[in-house]
Amino acid sequence: MPKVVDHDERRRELADAVWRVIRRDGVEGASVRAVAREAGWSPGSLRHYFPTQSELLSTAMNAVVERIDTRMGDFRDLAPTDPRAQVEQALHELLPLDAERRAENEVWLAFTARALVDRELRARHREVDQSLRRVCTWAVETLAGKGKGRAKVDVATESARLHALMDGLALHAALTSGRQGDHITKVLAHHLDTLT
Amino acid sequence: MPKVVDHDERRRELADAVWRVIRRDGVEGASVRAVAREAGWSPGSLRHYFPTQSELLSTAMNAVVERIDTRMGDFRDLAPTDPRAQVEQALHELLPLDAERRAENEVWLAFTARALVDRELRARHREVDQSLRRVCTWAVETLAGKGKGRAKVDVATESARLHALMDGLALHAALTSGRQGDHITKVLAHHLDTLT
Repeated sequence: MPKVVDHDERRRELADAVWRVIRRDGVEGASVRAVAREAGWSPGSLRHYFPTQSELLSTAMNAVVERIDTRMGDFRDLAPTDPRAQVEQALHELLPLDAERRAENEVWLAFTARALVDRELRARHREVDQSLRRVCTWAVETLAGKGKGRAKVDVATESARLHALMDGLALHAALTSGRQGDHITKVLAHHLDTLT
Repeated sequence: MPKVVDHDERRRELADAVWRVIRRDGVEGASVRAVAREAGWSPGSLRHYFPTQSELLSTAMNAVVERIDTRMGDFRDLAPTDPRAQVEQALHELLPLDAERRAENEVWLAFTARALVDRELRARHREVDQSLRRVCTWAVETLAGKGKGRAKVDVATESARLHALMDGLALHAALTSGRQGDHITKVLAHHLDTLT
């Protein structure tokens, strides 16, 4: 009988190894070689799954999206008893406010930097970007409430503004090595105040 | 008599060559080799001025800062007869709204992406970032006007918010290859409306 290889299982196992290396050594440290060592594979076998560094980064990005989706789902499924608090908590999941989210943010920025110059990654980046935009649209609509409040809001423009603000804050946080956690939550809180 | 070499003049000449290559081939095309070819130098002599790609990027960034400073000076020196229009025009100089500013934005983002992982570039990035923050502070103070209006504004928070928004918009514009010029000016105009 031929040996049966569960490729999905292997890919998951490797994605976990990618994630561990990034948490420990940063995105720069997550070379094909380093991930192979972490997973106990030969670099050659690893290249079957991740032929390029871009593929590896793309897999790490998928893991980030899954993690955020899981955490955000909890907030977004709640009945909006306190829309402002609910929106704020959900958006905090996207900001680098602890070691876990700083690692996610680092992957997101590395993935974004690569997408600027790598056309193959651009399409995947757009998908992730659109899902972030949907979160921003949900936030704007939730804050605007129903009826008259919502009618006054240009949802597309407000969502684009919140989205740009979130990306800008995440970038600034990364460049100051996360020393500005309080600062970025304060700026976001002020922005949400103006939307409520 | 020994040959006198004007290093500053040479550096300027090279900075011009870097800029021409970036305008034509993008930041990715601006390797030490490509810049040497453009300037008519040997790669070896070029490395005397730019030992690394980071140095080359840093020089390109200096050129961007000088260009923006020159253009912004015109607006900032005006008496504020129409503060809103003046601020908007000045901030537009920072956004990728034409080929020239798209090239500048590309340099800024490449420089930022490198600063995320290169500690040497981080200090120089912080300087540039602080000068952008000062422009945002000037914008917020100019819009708030004097006296009562200004007293109500938390200038530090508003400047940080405008700064993050500007960086986010520039990033989004670059990722959509500048097809969103109208879109980003609309989002910025809306933001300035809320500050006036």
